[in-house]
Parts: sequence; C-alpha cells; structure tokens
Amino acid sequence: MTLFAAPMENLIEQLSRLPGVGPKTAQRLAMFLLSADADQARELAEAIIDLKEKIRFCRECFNISEGDLCLICSNPKRDDGIICVVEEPRDVAAVERTGGFRGKYHVLGGAISPIDGVGPDRLRVKELLERVKERAVREVILATNPNAEGEATAMYLAEQLKSPGTRVSRIASGLPVGADLEYADEVTLGKSLEGRREL
Amino acid sequence: MTLFAAPMENLIEQLSRLPGVGPKTAQRLAMFLLSADADQARELAEAIIDLKEKIRFCRECFNISEGDLCLICSNPKRDDGIICVVEEPRDVAAVERTGGFRGKYHVLGGAISPIDGVGPDRLRVKELLERVKERAVREVILATNPNAEGEATAMYLAEQLKSPGTRVSRIASGLPVGADLEYADEVTLGKSLEGRREL
Repeated sequence: MTLFAAPMENLIEQLSRLPGVGPKTAQRLAMFLLSADADQARELAEAIIDLKEKIRFCRECFNISEGDLCLICSNPKRDDGIICVVEEPRDVAAVERTGGFRGKYHVLGGAISPIDGVGPDRLRVKELLERVKERAVREVILATNPNAEGEATAMYLAEQLKSPGTRVSRIASGLPVGADLEYADEVTLGKSLEGRREL
Repeated sequence: MTLFAAPMENLIEQLSRLPGVGPKTAQRLAMFLLSADADQARELAEAIIDLKEKIRFCRECFNISEGDLCLICSNPKRDDGIICVVEEPRDVAAVERTGGFRGKYHVLGGAISPIDGVGPDRLRVKELLERVKERAVREVILATNPNAEGEATAMYLAEQLKSPGTRVSRIASGLPVGADLEYADEVTLGKSLEGRREL
C-alpha cells in the first residue's frame, strides 16, 4: 500500500535498509528530513557520497583513512614499537576514546570464524606479521573482541607472533566498572577472578 | 578529538543531527555505509536530495505530495463528504494503515499550543473552514492527538465548525487493544469508561 508520494516512499525504503532502522524509524527520519531545511538534507546527502569517494584504507594499518596513511600512522608522536591489533576500524575509535594508548594499530578486518568461512587468510594477518618483523615492535596487544571468534583469533595470532623480541599481550576480561557481582554472568566473573591483580 | 578521517567524521556529525540518532548510532550507521556497496550509498544520498526537490504540500489537504494534489485528494474513489483532520502528514499514514477510512484528510500542520506560541492562525484552520463550507462535507472527524494540545485543538475546531449540515466527531480515547485494566493509567481508564458503547 502506498501511503506517501513516491520520493517519500523511496527515501523510507532506502533508510529501512540501514542497520537497526525499522519502517517506523525510517518514516520518522524521512519526515524529519522533509521538514529540515534544504541545506541540512543536502549536507547529509553529500556527506554520504563524500564518504564513499574519499575514504580508503591506510596502507600501513588498514584503518580507514582519507590519505595513503591514516591520521594515527602519520602522527610522528605515536609509538611505532607497540601495536594494538583490533578487528574493525570502529574498535580503533573505541580504544582511542580511552585516551590511554599512544602506540599504533593494526586492523584485521574481522575475526577468525570457521562457521562463516573466515580463516586467517581472509584477514590482514600476513601484513601484521610482516609489520612486526620489519619494525622494532616491542609489544603487540591483542584487542580482538572477548567472544569466541575474537579469542580464537587472539590465540592464533599469539602463536604466530611468538618471538624472543616481542611481548604479546591480551586485553583483560572482567567485570565492567560499576557492575554488581550479583548480576555478573559466571564466565565473566570467572575471567575476572583469573585476571586478578595484586594490590 | 578526531578519531576518524574527515569524511567519516563529517558523515557521523551529519547523522547525529537526525532525531533519535546519538553519536554511537551515527558511528554505526556511517561504518555500515562505508562497507555497503557504492550503489546503496548513492541511492540513499539521491533519495534524500529527491525528497527535498520533488515533495511539496497538496493544495487541497496539505498532505505531502509529489504533484499539485496528493494521491488521496486526486483519487476519485475517496469520499469528499467526510474529512479526517490530523496534525501532521505522518498521522495521515497512521490512519491509512487502519484501512478503515475512505474519506479525505486535512493536515493542520500542528496543534494549538499557547506555550509554544502556536495559535489557530499558525495552522491551516482557515483552509479547513473554507473546505467544509464550499464542499458538501457531511462529517468532520477530529483526529488530533489525544494529548493536551490535540484536545484543545479539537475543542477549538468543534466550536468553529458548528453548523446544522455538518457532524463533527472526535476519535475515541480508551484502553489500547490487548491492554490490562490493572496497568492502565487512571485518565485513560476514565476516558474508556466515559466512551463506553452499548452492546
């Protein structure tokens, strides 16, 4: 059933294809854009087109980048000797937001997942191993997600990265800050006990 | 702090301006568009631009429309003699989805709200009164929202529309289908009792 004029229906359909956007949200967003001023709508449309035209992957770490090298790889103040390995570019943003990391990154482009047919050859593992060998990398922090795929990927990489000159570490699993022991799941609480630190 | 390349940051900022889209959702949507195929991103961008260029308001009912008259006003099968008055175009869509209304609409463009400085002169009230007078309108259904502003608007319109030839009605308030009396708020339950129908 067509409820709206064609351009409206079309935009609602396009918006519905975004993740987490159902038909009702799509309609609300389209209505908002309809009443928004023309500049705002045009800027959004142009930003989408720009993204696809201007963004590529950093040749060093495979983070998203406007130039050949991303902002982090081209920053001389960042420590080349420590690499944080993550699954996706959004994970780079998550680690950056902590403000506690001054090294560089390596974006794998996913995690090992036999069910989905993703083996190490589908990820940027070879490039990571080359980077670690060629530069004087002192530590590799494996910051893949703390789920089955991320753990498997971390275990695999730890094996591959074994060498006398390089420390390989894994981010800690445990209770989130502000959590209640009572409501924690037993796997997380178990990890939290395992990873206890002396005071 | 700039976490991403400029075109990515720009799109995230633009998306954050949409209603109900916070920074995290904006980032997720931008990441999705980055990895989506170029066609999908372009189609979305074009749909936004098309909307602003092609959509206007129906000269009869002020619903959104591609042409001079909207799809409903230009449909000869719809009954001219009954007009459903709503606040916004999205309310037209809501009533249409019920499939139970074969008349026409009148979109006010809002509701009377002294706090926000919206009086009857800021709404399409004059146009409604003219339409009702000029055409042989048998019934006007006031379907403004069942909240303070919508009720005030309905009361005001009922007063203005008083004439021997025209019935004026208000949509029913009551418990939603599937609701529990126990959990209903007292105002809604009161309205539901008031509006009881004989069986």
